[in-house]
Amino acid sequence: VATVTIGDALPGVDAAGEVVFDHERGVRESLEHLGALGHRRITVLSWAVETSPDREAEQAVVTSAAALGLDCRIVPCAYSLNGSRPLALGLLAGEDRPSAVLCLSDSIAYGVYAACAELGLSIPDDVAVAGFGDHPISRLLAPPLTSTVWDIDRVAEVATGFLVQAMAAEGPQATLRERIDPVLVARASTTGPGAR
Amino acid sequence: VATVTIGDALPGVDAAGEVVFDHERGVRESLEHLGALGHRRITVLSWAVETSPDREAEQAVVTSAAALGLDCRIVPCAYSLNGSRPLALGLLAGEDRPSAVLCLSDSIAYGVYAACAELGLSIPDDVAVAGFGDHPISRLLAPPLTSTVWDIDRVAEVATGFLVQAMAAEGPQATLRERIDPVLVARASTTGPGAR
Repeated sequence: VATVTIGDALPGVDAAGEVVFDHERGVRESLEHLGALGHRRITVLSWAVETSPDREAEQAVVTSAAALGLDCRIVPCAYSLNGSRPLALGLLAGEDRPSAVLCLSDSIAYGVYAACAELGLSIPDDVAVAGFGDHPISRLLAPPLTSTVWDIDRVAEVATGFLVQAMAAEGPQATLRERIDPVLVARASTTGPGAR
Repeated sequence: VATVTIGDALPGVDAAGEVVFDHERGVRESLEHLGALGHRRITVLSWAVETSPDREAEQAVVTSAAALGLDCRIVPCAYSLNGSRPLALGLLAGEDRPSAVLCLSDSIAYGVYAACAELGLSIPDDVAVAGFGDHPISRLLAPPLTSTVWDIDRVAEVATGFLVQAMAAEGPQATLRERIDPVLVARASTTGPGAR
């Protein structure tokens, strides 16, 4: 059986191919985007802190924050609106709230939106919000959510090519590998009226 | 094993209790809401036409439409944004588009929003949209989605009570049954600026 992984590489899996999302670059560009808008205190909500502590996305927060001079705090968060909402309520209720929140999945950002609505906080005036992964619903929100998208057509093309190559190969082969570049889609949740 | 069903009753299941959502009333009140706003040509997108053809929600569309003098057309639709989007593109692209769309799940409504965005149609000016089930994300959309919600705390309380009763009972008992009333939450997708 030939296996091609998509997204993160899977440790312990002898994959014929790996189509790896460049999470590191995605996170760096997200933080650069927020930094360029003037944000310095940024909370990063991540679903993967406990499940994949070595994931490059979370490591990239630390290195990018240092390089950009940002005060970034990583907070573990459930991967859903109902999971992130109560957490965001606590994070954003105080006077010392961050000026921006980077959510390492769009689902987490939806809970931040819900919390902001309950607290009467305006996005992006009071707090800028960015997601990650660009779910199709994210552009339909009020305001539309800034997020990072991967070229899924390209992913499918590369993964299919790897599978075809693996099935045609005779004997053991080196793992095929390609890195997919992120595309930051800036929308009103960071750049809208009232943004810095 | 004591079973309590929630939502639709399950044919063939000898349930100790049934907590049934009053879908019939929910649909009727949704159509009344749209009718009161002046809509006469309404398309109803339903995920259950093929899976549960006898479901009372779809039957209620027919009877309520007749009672209210509405021209309602039921169209089968996949239960997701990506499923409903292409269908909605086709339904809404022509000059003879309906003035309102009632989606029998909020997920379907998200695809209608996406289609409207692509077609340059304004909600509710060009087409009013209502959902069903009130997912927490629906109030975060632009515009916020009119939907029908069930009192989930009450559902949990009743279902738990039925289970406790069933476990304490000796010998066969009649099925316990309670009907949960719908609550229509009118938001800007039907009542906003530009609505009829």
